[in-house]
Amino acid sequence: MEHKIRTDLAIELRESFPEDDVEVKGVILKEKFDEKNNIRVTTVEIRDEAGAKAMGKPIGTYITIETPELNNLSEDYHKPVSDLIAMHLRKLSGKLSRDDVLVVGLGNREVTPDALGPQVVDNLFVTRHLIREFGEEFKERNHLGNVSAISPGVMAQTGMETLEIIKGVIKETNPRLIIVIDALASRSINRLNTTVQISDTGISPGSGVGNNRKALNEESLGVKVIAIGVPTVVDAATIVADTLTKYMESTGFGEEDIFKFISEVNGQQMYNMFVTPKNIDESIKRISYTLSEALNSCFSGGVLH
Amino acid sequence: MEHKIRTDLAIELRESFPEDDVEVKGVILKEKFDEKNNIRVTTVEIRDEAGAKAMGKPIGTYITIETPELNNLSEDYHKPVSDLIAMHLRKLSGKLSRDDVLVVGLGNREVTPDALGPQVVDNLFVTRHLIREFGEEFKERNHLGNVSAISPGVMAQTGMETLEIIKGVIKETNPRLIIVIDALASRSINRLNTTVQISDTGISPGSGVGNNRKALNEESLGVKVIAIGVPTVVDAATIVADTLTKYMESTGFGEEDIFKFISEVNGQQMYNMFVTPKNIDESIKRISYTLSEALNSCFSGGVLH
Amino acid sequence: MEHKIRTDLAIELRESFPEDDVEVKGVILKEKFDEKNNIRVTTVEIRDEAGAKAMGKPIGTYITIETPELNNLSEDYHKPVSDLIAMHLRKLSGKLSRDDVLVVGLGNREVTPDALGPQVVDNLFVTRHLIREFGEEFKERNHLGNVSAISPGVMAQTGMETLEIIKGVIKETNPRLIIVIDALASRSINRLNTTVQISDTGISPGSGVGNNRKALNEESLGVKVIAIGVPTVVDAATIVADTLTKYMESTGFGEEDIFKFISEVNGQQMYNMFVTPKNIDESIKRISYTLSEALNSCFSGGVLH
Amino acid sequence: MEHKIRTDLAIELRESFPEDDVEVKGVILKEKFDEKNNIRVTTVEIRDEAGAKAMGKPIGTYITIETPELNNLSEDYHKPVSDLIAMHLRKLSGKLSRDDVLVVGLGNREVTPDALGPQVVDNLFVTRHLIREFGEEFKERNHLGNVSAISPGVMAQTGMETLEIIKGVIKETNPRLIIVIDALASRSINRLNTTVQISDTGISPGSGVGNNRKALNEESLGVKVIAIGVPTVVDAATIVADTLTKYMESTGFGEEDIFKFISEVNGQQMYNMFVTPKNIDESIKRISYTLSEALNSCFSGGVLH
Repeated sequence: MEHKIRTDLAIELRESFPEDDVEVKGVILKEKFDEKNNIRVTTVEIRDEAGAKAMGKPIGTYITIETPELNNLSEDYHKPVSDLIAMHLRKLSGKLSRDDVLVVGLGNREVTPDALGPQVVDNLFVTRHLIREFGEEFKERNHLGNVSAISPGVMAQTGMETLEIIKGVIKETNPRLIIVIDALASRSINRLNTTVQISDTGISPGSGVGNNRKALNEESLGVKVIAIGVPTVVDAATIVADTLTKYMESTGFGEEDIFKFISEVNGQQMYNMFVTPKNIDESIKRISYTLSEALNSCFSGGVLH
Repeated sequence: MEHKIRTDLAIELRESFPEDDVEVKGVILKEKFDEKNNIRVTTVEIRDEAGAKAMGKPIGTYITIETPELNNLSEDYHKPVSDLIAMHLRKLSGKLSRDDVLVVGLGNREVTPDALGPQVVDNLFVTRHLIREFGEEFKERNHLGNVSAISPGVMAQTGMETLEIIKGVIKETNPRLIIVIDALASRSINRLNTTVQISDTGISPGSGVGNNRKALNEESLGVKVIAIGVPTVVDAATIVADTLTKYMESTGFGEEDIFKFISEVNGQQMYNMFVTPKNIDESIKRISYTLSEALNSCFSGGVLH
Repeated sequence: MEHKIRTDLAIELRESFPEDDVEVKGVILKEKFDEKNNIRVTTVEIRDEAGAKAMGKPIGTYITIETPELNNLSEDYHKPVSDLIAMHLRKLSGKLSRDDVLVVGLGNREVTPDALGPQVVDNLFVTRHLIREFGEEFKERNHLGNVSAISPGVMAQTGMETLEIIKGVIKETNPRLIIVIDALASRSINRLNTTVQISDTGISPGSGVGNNRKALNEESLGVKVIAIGVPTVVDAATIVADTLTKYMESTGFGEEDIFKFISEVNGQQMYNMFVTPKNIDESIKRISYTLSEALNSCFSGGVLH
Repeated sequence: MEHKIRTDLAIELRESFPEDDVEVKGVILKEKFDEKNNIRVTTVEIRDEAGAKAMGKPIGTYITIETPELNNLSEDYHKPVSDLIAMHLRKLSGKLSRDDVLVVGLGNREVTPDALGPQVVDNLFVTRHLIREFGEEFKERNHLGNVSAISPGVMAQTGMETLEIIKGVIKETNPRLIIVIDALASRSINRLNTTVQISDTGISPGSGVGNNRKALNEESLGVKVIAIGVPTVVDAATIVADTLTKYMESTGFGEEDIFKFISEVNGQQMYNMFVTPKNIDESIKRISYTLSEALNSCFSGGVLH
């Protein structure tokens, strides 16, 4: 098995280019800083196959919201972040945001840093069954979206690919937009629980804690997919490799040699390990609340949320 | 809304016939008592439309296992019960038991007496993904069945009918047999947590705690469905009505009058209430363990369970 | 064992007096209705032993806040309720509210309607350890109270009286005020999840779901105790008895006869049963959030809550 | 802050001595391998102050049980391990095992690898309240021990030192023996979830995931303390340092330089991170079951466990 530096964040891939200030062909980078709320928004737009190849990520828009306040104890700081996420969701989903939306909470609710998706779904205001019971008039009067949701669990629990479950559910319920929530892996521990990535390119479930699985995207699902991810773990081998690399910089060793060395020292089990902060339970609770607020405000609008 | 005595148990329906010792046409009743293990097994077989109409239940076999030991603290008592359930499962499923099985844990894991299905799934040995990864040879060598599982949640959480979710999942993953686990409502508090009903007729999700939903059965799913249910609640209005009825027996009041009276005294909210024992958490934990053992022994056979 | 109508609410005891409009000696009743927010506040003050005897409750102040909004889906309705609770807490606790406070979340977190106390504690902003680490200056600068908290579990889980655990913790940590949160039993299903009772008389743990246990109050703990309770269950025998009573009103049967009759019909197990709504999980989640907000605002004041 | 290689296992401390085969003064090492069950038992006995100083651990006996079967899917493998743990518990506790025992489940139930202690307590058969209700005769007839239990939570949840809570509970309930269960940190990822350490020297709560807190031992509690720990995490900085050390072995850098370098690369947050396997939920479930079986068999003996 080949190992390499692991990150699910487009922004970290972009940073890894040595010519940090030069433009990568086919990739557009925009940055905006809201000093008052201490929020940085970076948009990485991968415009063509050249850019996709250079970045190792599909064509599409990746919005990264970085703010220490995401992990702040006080609720007061959450409203600006949640409003900002809702705004970007509305922009990326366009008219579909008033249509039937299925929210998918990926991840394993029994493993704390992987429970983000299921916990967002737990806090969601789900409306589809109400609209089916009380009709369109009820929907309009209450300014509701049409929201359904599912936390499918992970393959070790179900024996099924998440793709299989979601594909089946889509066929039966016909949503027009899929929102996928997942815990991600970042390369740097500084990004943990302080970063939200929103993209219109879909996601590979279990990219954070689990193993890489079949991608959920417009191609595989036949419906537009917006993914919201928050890095909650760092791959254990990556953190070791990064530190070693810094040390070896002058020695001329390459990434491959370093991973080979790590495997020799720690064994193959190293690649089934992740790194996460000790207070991950508090972070997951806070961030899932912020994300569900953003979704409720975006899709279940007005009165009832 | 019309209200009536509520039970999900075929055995309680059968008991409600005044001519208790006479045979109901189209319905065959067999009883067996294992004195040593204190387990009573009653089989109600509804053979034709006449029987189905008389009983208000679909044609099929309903096996009821009654034993106080189901709720016993000691693990020692669980093995005979779990073995007996496995035996009846094997009988009802026939050759299908070695084929691809999807186990569905119905119910809301956040409401204790309704968490039975999800907790059974939590303890299940799921194998489908392993067999897909390691091949048929791995399956044979380890005497495994091919088991997948899902806890779809309830409509208030997902906005979707359970039928929609399961139908979709079946289309994508093609199981040959569905096992559905659910918490049921009994009429009598004496049956709570001491009874298991196994039937080959499918089930209406949420019959225990939730509202009646679209049935999961061979007709709606296109695959054979075996349902395993345990009564964990009594409908609140039913318990009141039953007591009142006993009192009014001589007065000539009918069931309808009694429910009308209950509504007058308690309001319509009475019909969204259930009755359950104070130590329901311990019962659910124990019984879900016993059921998952039965399923693991029946479907994941030999070595690895 | 003798059985009787069961309620933990002073307001329901007061209502049970036939001379509803006449004053009970030693008991003062005040009522206030906030039409805008649809909140009714009733204060029952038991002033002397005569009143205590008449009511069957200790001398003290019982504030009952009744509002359907407590159970409302929308968060917008929660702020006025949570502000009102905080206001009454401040009034009852007086200067002690700025002193060391220990919050005790009673109840069994594994039984949904009994999980209120533990869930309030889960959402609490606890500060005692921070103040011990960063000092008084840190406390003053952030306008913090000094809050510690514990969810001791119930006797079936610990083998200990809650009184024993809390007494021990108080001896070691010396709080000046105890706030106890518990799920209660009301007599009427209409009061479930729409009522908050605040009193300065302490509480008997497990009065809601569990069995009556040794009281937590100033006498047993040596520290002032304020209890916050929300009825989440109705005793099953009480609901049956109440309905039967209404029916029998004209027949001259007394409460005792009625309970004897209920026991005959349902058996003694009836007295270990409770009645609760099907959507109790949603109610507990919402109400525990409202209560923790009230506590955070009252005791952890300013910046960090 | 000074950083160093972090381990809670006596056996790993012993291994870190270069003269692996020579005896450390004051420390006796015994090893036994059960080939049939694939279980290795190592006893490290620290006999005097010299040994304690050399090892950096208090005087006492540390029994380490190592077996991959601890983490095995199949239940069949758990019985020999659980029997072995029970046997060593009986040996270490002597006559006290038939006396009043308080089991303390340390750790945060919301962080998966730290939930071991609380989950063991969840599965425990608690008897103290039964014996107080039904008397000594009931205890003798059922061959019961007198077991109480508590999961006090962690300081971030309670604002209190665990020592304060447990000290208080002991004063009120007078147990004669304390069994403390905690998740530990090992140095090597190979030891995770395959090792049980039993010692009669007490424990520092939060040594695994949390921060080091005041020790629970006979000196601080006034009662004999037996600690059972299972390594479920590796300190993130330790894993990086260990790998780097191997690399730098020949360069003459020391541990201090390496940690300084790690801090430079990763920042101070590195020291609030832990490493744990992706399937930690399954391991915690299995191991907590095995430990609770061992405790139930040791202390609640006979019939009812």
